[in-house]
Amino acid sequence: MSENPLHLLMNPKSVAVAGASNTPTKMGSIQSLSLLKDGYQGKVYFLHPKDKSIFGIPTYPSPKDLPDVPDLAFLIVPINVALNLLEEFGKIGTKRAIVVTAGFKETGEEGAHLENKLNEVAARYGIRFVGPNCLGVINSQICLNTTVYPFPPSDGLLGLASQSGTYVTQILPLSRKRGIKFSKAISLGNEANIDIADALEYLGDDEQTKAVILYIEGIRNGKKFLEIARKVSRRKPVLAQYVGGTVSGARAGMSHTGAMAGPDFLYDGMFKQAGIIRVGSIEELYDHGWTLATQPVPRGNRVGVMTNSGGPSSSISHTCDLAGLSVPRYSKKLQEQIRPYLQPHAASSNPVDLTFDTSMKHLAITIPEIIIKSGEVDALISHGIMHSGFLKEIYSHAVDFLGNITFEEFLSMTEPVLTDVFTLARNHKVPHLISTFFGQEDSYTKGFQEHNVPVFHSPEKAARAMGALYHYKLIRQRKAGKKATLPKINPGAIKILQQAGKNGQKALDEHAAKKLLAAYGVPVTKEILTESLKEALAAANKLGYPVALKACHWEIMHKSGKGLIALNIENAKTLKKAFLDIRQAAGFFTPVLVQQMLSGGRELLAGMTRFAGFGPGVVFGLGGVFTEALRDTTLRLAPLTDADAQEMLNDIHAKALLDKFRGMPAVDKEKMIRILQTVGNISLLHPEIAEIDLNPIIIQKARPVVADALVVLKD
Amino acid sequence: MSENPLHLLMNPKSVAVAGASNTPTKMGSIQSLSLLKDGYQGKVYFLHPKDKSIFGIPTYPSPKDLPDVPDLAFLIVPINVALNLLEEFGKIGTKRAIVVTAGFKETGEEGAHLENKLNEVAARYGIRFVGPNCLGVINSQICLNTTVYPFPPSDGLLGLASQSGTYVTQILPLSRKRGIKFSKAISLGNEANIDIADALEYLGDDEQTKAVILYIEGIRNGKKFLEIARKVSRRKPVLAQYVGGTVSGARAGMSHTGAMAGPDFLYDGMFKQAGIIRVGSIEELYDHGWTLATQPVPRGNRVGVMTNSGGPSSSISHTCDLAGLSVPRYSKKLQEQIRPYLQPHAASSNPVDLTFDTSMKHLAITIPEIIIKSGEVDALISHGIMHSGFLKEIYSHAVDFLGNITFEEFLSMTEPVLTDVFTLARNHKVPHLISTFFGQEDSYTKGFQEHNVPVFHSPEKAARAMGALYHYKLIRQRKAGKKATLPKINPGAIKILQQAGKNGQKALDEHAAKKLLAAYGVPVTKEILTESLKEALAAANKLGYPVALKACHWEIMHKSGKGLIALNIENAKTLKKAFLDIRQAAGFFTPVLVQQMLSGGRELLAGMTRFAGFGPGVVFGLGGVFTEALRDTTLRLAPLTDADAQEMLNDIHAKALLDKFRGMPAVDKEKMIRILQTVGNISLLHPEIAEIDLNPIIIQKARPVVADALVVLKD
Repeated sequence: MSENPLHLLMNPKSVAVAGASNTPTKMGSIQSLSLLKDGYQGKVYFLHPKDKSIFGIPTYPSPKDLPDVPDLAFLIVPINVALNLLEEFGKIGTKRAIVVTAGFKETGEEGAHLENKLNEVAARYGIRFVGPNCLGVINSQICLNTTVYPFPPSDGLLGLASQSGTYVTQILPLSRKRGIKFSKAISLGNEANIDIADALEYLGDDEQTKAVILYIEGIRNGKKFLEIARKVSRRKPVLAQYVGGTVSGARAGMSHTGAMAGPDFLYDGMFKQAGIIRVGSIEELYDHGWTLATQPVPRGNRVGVMTNSGGPSSSISHTCDLAGLSVPRYSKKLQEQIRPYLQPHAASSNPVDLTFDTSMKHLAITIPEIIIKSGEVDALISHGIMHSGFLKEIYSHAVDFLGNITFEEFLSMTEPVLTDVFTLARNHKVPHLISTFFGQEDSYTKGFQEHNVPVFHSPEKAARAMGALYHYKLIRQRKAGKKATLPKINPGAIKILQQAGKNGQKALDEHAAKKLLAAYGVPVTKEILTESLKEALAAANKLGYPVALKACHWEIMHKSGKGLIALNIENAKTLKKAFLDIRQAAGFFTPVLVQQMLSGGRELLAGMTRFAGFGPGVVFGLGGVFTEALRDTTLRLAPLTDADAQEMLNDIHAKALLDKFRGMPAVDKEKMIRILQTVGNISLLHPEIAEIDLNPIIIQKARPVVADALVVLKD
Repeated sequence: MSENPLHLLMNPKSVAVAGASNTPTKMGSIQSLSLLKDGYQGKVYFLHPKDKSIFGIPTYPSPKDLPDVPDLAFLIVPINVALNLLEEFGKIGTKRAIVVTAGFKETGEEGAHLENKLNEVAARYGIRFVGPNCLGVINSQICLNTTVYPFPPSDGLLGLASQSGTYVTQILPLSRKRGIKFSKAISLGNEANIDIADALEYLGDDEQTKAVILYIEGIRNGKKFLEIARKVSRRKPVLAQYVGGTVSGARAGMSHTGAMAGPDFLYDGMFKQAGIIRVGSIEELYDHGWTLATQPVPRGNRVGVMTNSGGPSSSISHTCDLAGLSVPRYSKKLQEQIRPYLQPHAASSNPVDLTFDTSMKHLAITIPEIIIKSGEVDALISHGIMHSGFLKEIYSHAVDFLGNITFEEFLSMTEPVLTDVFTLARNHKVPHLISTFFGQEDSYTKGFQEHNVPVFHSPEKAARAMGALYHYKLIRQRKAGKKATLPKINPGAIKILQQAGKNGQKALDEHAAKKLLAAYGVPVTKEILTESLKEALAAANKLGYPVALKACHWEIMHKSGKGLIALNIENAKTLKKAFLDIRQAAGFFTPVLVQQMLSGGRELLAGMTRFAGFGPGVVFGLGGVFTEALRDTTLRLAPLTDADAQEMLNDIHAKALLDKFRGMPAVDKEKMIRILQTVGNISLLHPEIAEIDLNPIIIQKARPVVADALVVLKD
């Protein structure tokens, strides 16, 4: 694989800036100041057509006048200038660029045309660039900062790639307050050249980056992204916020699968498949990302909760429960060890609640140490460790009664900050998260932040972040999964599709669809296509009653509620009537499918729909009458590994249905997995298929059998 | 109704404190300082057994020595002292108390005994008190603050009642930073005397309080709470966080309904019935509460989004969509009005995204004013309005190039803060929420907070808070609903239950259960109880095939999967075999129910289980095979109004099943509502019934018919 283009772009020995001026409130100037003032040790050159110096630094009129070839061109110029300049940098041999300039594809057709030109120029000279319409990058390792906000030197651990510049820049002061530090951050802009998959790969390889967070509005090359993300997520945590599509996201499609699978559904499934943890807000992206970047992966889901108050105790426990964590009751032995340090009315069972106490010794050191050493928990959440923040509050009231001493004098009269607490959990390789209502005005908040222990301003947030940490543990222990070898393309299947193509069909009829599926080993109902009542009666005799009758023609894609189907036909008399009724509804020459009548309390669905850039998405879920009413479905992209398909079965709300259930045996999961993989494979082998619905798949005793099938063809 | 006991407790003309000392880091001292220093104008007396003065104020040895009768006794003394003191205050005629003292019921049996004694003393003297084990109260109107944290005078609008003291105290510095101000706050402690329902009633009546927030770990008198909450929520918003039970909350119970209905499910349903908005974290409780306390209720769900960045635009839109809000595309006319104020590449359709611009005029004033006046939105969310916070960031980089001017000088060179923005939306009676990454260091954040415009540190939070505001609009426009008049108790029903009682049954058999239901008008399957094959054959002939056969005995509560039931019996031959099989499985003398075989694609459930303090909870949801697999159910407390029952139908995920669906007609909702109301009424009329399961209720065409019923009796 060729080297990732961001290696050089993020580590330039020299940068040439076009677009700075001496007005310090202009965007280009502010960005240049970041480059000059935050500690970057490389050379910075300014280009300017007129001004001889910028911020006291001599300028050059054009790239060809530069004293050497800069590794990176940084363009914050008007759109017409940007194209020329990129060409000029290309000519002198610069290979990387950041194009901040806006007005390209995001503005419409004309802009898109200009963006193509940008790419043409870049291709001509072998330039790889970030942008356009971006804010640039931060590399804390070399103090490189091209954004409009200061980024003081820091030993960051969190890598960000963002399709919004704001989340690389405007948010910096807030993340400083929160003690969250980037290793690297990349504002991707329009992704004309370097895209989010490149950024993920780069951050995945970067030693300094311990967790990757992604802000995503849309991914163009979904296949590439998935492939890279699957690899990265095995090495380090990857988290993403996706806000591209509305959740209801109506989508065109002739199959139920197509109509249900909007973009939000696609990304949700793809993230799961990739091992990416999805979050619901930018705050969670930072919070959970920072937790995963700084804390060890817990051995299990048992959380010890330490507080000085019942409210946070309960909130943390409740939220842990929601997040798949447990707050186990401590053993009698452990409780006896803790008891001596508690007031008589304090709780010792987990959460441990010390109630009001101005000393932090037992809350922050003595008891947590005992708990960690007991081995009864895998992680620790503390609420209520505080010092100067709280004392300042008291001081403001007590100052006159204290003889008007200064706050510092007051502080010196109280218990000092117990610095051991900052490393206590880490020394035992146990993750530790802090909840407190105090910010950096409190010395404990500050100390925890300086030691990379995440601090949250609400008990629930700490618990949710711990949930994300445990979630990553589960991702890490996932089976790698085997890709099913793509079977040989089936000649019978080709024939069926060719014939339908010749007929100008938009879909296969049910019988043909099932023949195609059966050709690849998908279990389908026994059935006989008939052209007359006589044939139908013979077919029913052959299959054995009860049978189902269905009108069978490719134009009939959805049969229910239209008199085109008759179920549970027990005898010849009923069959006759049903046959005539169906003919009445469907037209006299419509063939009628006589089908073995399956019964079983459980009806599932498998399907496929395609997404530009992502390929076929395979869908699994509840079928039959509940399909649209419950939309209890999940998606993965083809080809599916066995592990992917297995996870799909566990990913629906109604998963209990697949196990031994109300006297019914467990569904044969191996068979169901094979159906899902096969739907994926068929989609890869036959690109002329647009959508597939297998619905219902009836579970006959344990065995899934496709009772109805729709195969929609591409136009 | 008698006057709420909190009226006097929250507005004392004088307070006597027992438990303060001259050590300013002791809890009682810190609380007394709050009473002395935060502006309370009433008299404060200190009791002390030894010290002659506290904080320079002369003390009294005991209540009888006080110069007048204090309205409020404030006790922070050891547990043995608390009882005596309350008695002494009783003797001098004090009628209200706050008991901070801990060590009562929360510690176990002995403490509970002491708590009862506390109540006995109070009852003897007509004292009403808050606590024990609480932190007291805040009344901003009279600057009364008994907590351990300072509470500077403020014109608060938000009323809090909390079962955790922390959320009245420790959180105060954080809420100050956030600009959130209490009107009144009450730390309830153990609720030995005054409980959360009293507090809700008080805050509901309080003119100064514009929204009420509740932190709840458990409610003892659920009926009283519901009755009060229903009334209050029609006048002002009520929000609650409940963290009492684990969500999975396994619960004993012989019926499915009983086993599924844990405490979290109970509170969730009760909150909906009460018109209370439930939140998931303490932060949301404050954030959403403050939003509802300060912002007008929007006319509809259309949100206008104003930003200077694409990321927050997308995040806000996406989250609005999740929260049931819409971000409608602006009309061509409106977009044309906005266009002149935008850069060419900026979006005008909604969200309006101005992109980078250091002037706030268009973002904060010009464009929002045009949008509000257009009438095309009902609410406004702005992101990116900033001034000194941002300029401080730039200044730190630019200061040398600016000739080392001070920050204040630099500020004076830039656009001044546009103060009109703080009242713009309010002047048009449109709710307005702010997202920004800057805290009070930014003059816009500060200004918005001072003008009671809520400010959030993440775009998603602003959108979610707007969702809560719209949610309250929906609550306000709910129909009041009519309570069904409780029918006369049915003599036949009494006889059935009496007979079962005499037999020592733990449940009714299915047939008896249905007779009881039918006596109150619930539609049930046609069926005949038989004792022999001959009777069964005759019954089937009478009912007409197909029929179902079921073993029928009160000890058989759940039939599926045990060979006790046979469905779809088409003829006498099949019936014979089924009858013998069932007898084989159930025992030779077990009666067999011959039942009309219902068919219909939709199976629902109604049920009832009782909760201590709350009475009967009526449950509705998906029935049949999906009952436990999907747990798509909802609960309301009996008696149900027609509006309650109607809302239950809308409250399940699968609600689309109840409408016209896949060729099936819409469910007869009136009939379903009547079934739910009747289940509630039966439970109220017959307290000897412990649990009810009607499952499945099969929808026959449109009509719901109970196909199986279980009535569990109390021990």
